[in-house]
Amino acid sequence: MTKNKKVNAAILIIGNEILSGRTQDTNTTTIALWLNSIGVKVQEVRVIPDIENTIIETVNHLRKVNDYVFTTGGIGPTHDDITAQSISKAFSIKYEIHKEAYKILEAYYKPGEFNEGRQKMVWMPENANLILNPTSGAPGFNVKNVFCLPGVPSILKSMLGGLTNSIVGGEPILSLTISLRTVESEIADSLTKVQNNNKDVEIGSYPFFQAGKLGVSIVIRSEEQSKIDNCNSQILKFVNEKKIEVVDR
Amino acid sequence: MTKNKKVNAAILIIGNEILSGRTQDTNTTTIALWLNSIGVKVQEVRVIPDIENTIIETVNHLRKVNDYVFTTGGIGPTHDDITAQSISKAFSIKYEIHKEAYKILEAYYKPGEFNEGRQKMVWMPENANLILNPTSGAPGFNVKNVFCLPGVPSILKSMLGGLTNSIVGGEPILSLTISLRTVESEIADSLTKVQNNNKDVEIGSYPFFQAGKLGVSIVIRSEEQSKIDNCNSQILKFVNEKKIEVVDR
Repeated sequence: MTKNKKVNAAILIIGNEILSGRTQDTNTTTIALWLNSIGVKVQEVRVIPDIENTIIETVNHLRKVNDYVFTTGGIGPTHDDITAQSISKAFSIKYEIHKEAYKILEAYYKPGEFNEGRQKMVWMPENANLILNPTSGAPGFNVKNVFCLPGVPSILKSMLGGLTNSIVGGEPILSLTISLRTVESEIADSLTKVQNNNKDVEIGSYPFFQAGKLGVSIVIRSEEQSKIDNCNSQILKFVNEKKIEVVDR
Repeated sequence: MTKNKKVNAAILIIGNEILSGRTQDTNTTTIALWLNSIGVKVQEVRVIPDIENTIIETVNHLRKVNDYVFTTGGIGPTHDDITAQSISKAFSIKYEIHKEAYKILEAYYKPGEFNEGRQKMVWMPENANLILNPTSGAPGFNVKNVFCLPGVPSILKSMLGGLTNSIVGGEPILSLTISLRTVESEIADSLTKVQNNNKDVEIGSYPFFQAGKLGVSIVIRSEEQSKIDNCNSQILKFVNEKKIEVVDR
């Protein structure tokens, strides 16, 4: 794969607890920032319930229209953890005890502690590649372009570093943020002109409230630093003309 | 609509800033908790970029398979705010100045301040119903079963109360959480049995770390209190037998 190809990914959050509002998802942010740093752009996120058919259909759609799919959640030992068996069905691969995962967990637990509940975590699609888990032992896995990670944020975070070499990204996506003491409507027209002059750069505008004051952060994103620098100059030009203060955030 | 019908919704988060990991979405949790309280279950969340065709296709799919769709983001004054025009196209409705919204914002701003940038916020699908905004003036809107809200969390929150009467929910979804000083694998088998005996109740199991200690929260969700109570007794039975401590969280 050449470095100039655009590489994209979808994130699939599996879990009733996110849909009910009980748990605030933070894994999307963690995975997206890591993917950006290795040149992969997230183009879609979905959150779906712990329902087998929904998981199968969604995975089979997302893996066809994205270079990579990252799932989170549903790989623990309880009855609502059905990601591994659903992925097996999605790929029509046998769901069985993964010998390498079995050895890892057998060595991880004290003698007698590797009980039936824990053994559920070594059932996986046949020949899945393991994603090692330095935090709590139980590995994630990947089949083709689908990578299955746990839902607990601290455990997920600890596993991403080991995955970096498995992902072939494009150019890293660079970004620059300019924060201004203004409101969006004061700069909307000027910013539209800059966007129209730089159609292949992504320019976003985000209002913020900080220490009781309003402001706007403009975020410029591109794979090319020179394009970011160009946009930056054009934005600073109208910012100076309008006598808008640039602030640190 | 009778009160016993199940009513479901999708949440559609529109915004590159969530996909890039720059901004942590919290609107999903806010909307989901509010919907639960009025008897609407969120069955899917999607996060998509500020791309017109993507918005149109996604809205047109979600509005067909859900009772309600709630979008967030993209209704401000800048070039990357394209939700209103995309919704107009999704419904093949004219995109025009909304007279009532115009009057509201004209009265909201000081004379001379209702500039071109701000006027963009009153362009909406023809005859859209307004969703009033007690925080910053600019209204959201709804067309049929699609409700378009802003992306700024504090503003979105302030608008939900005024929406409650526009949504016809089913029975409120009740929940009970039991937090235990244990690990999932110790209770997985017993919990599976309770789930199998209560197939129409949603039982989730969620590990937590608190003050350096591991625990598991079991969440029971149903529209019927008696079903929750039944599950609760069955869970407390095995918890007592296994001498597991119940903890406050």
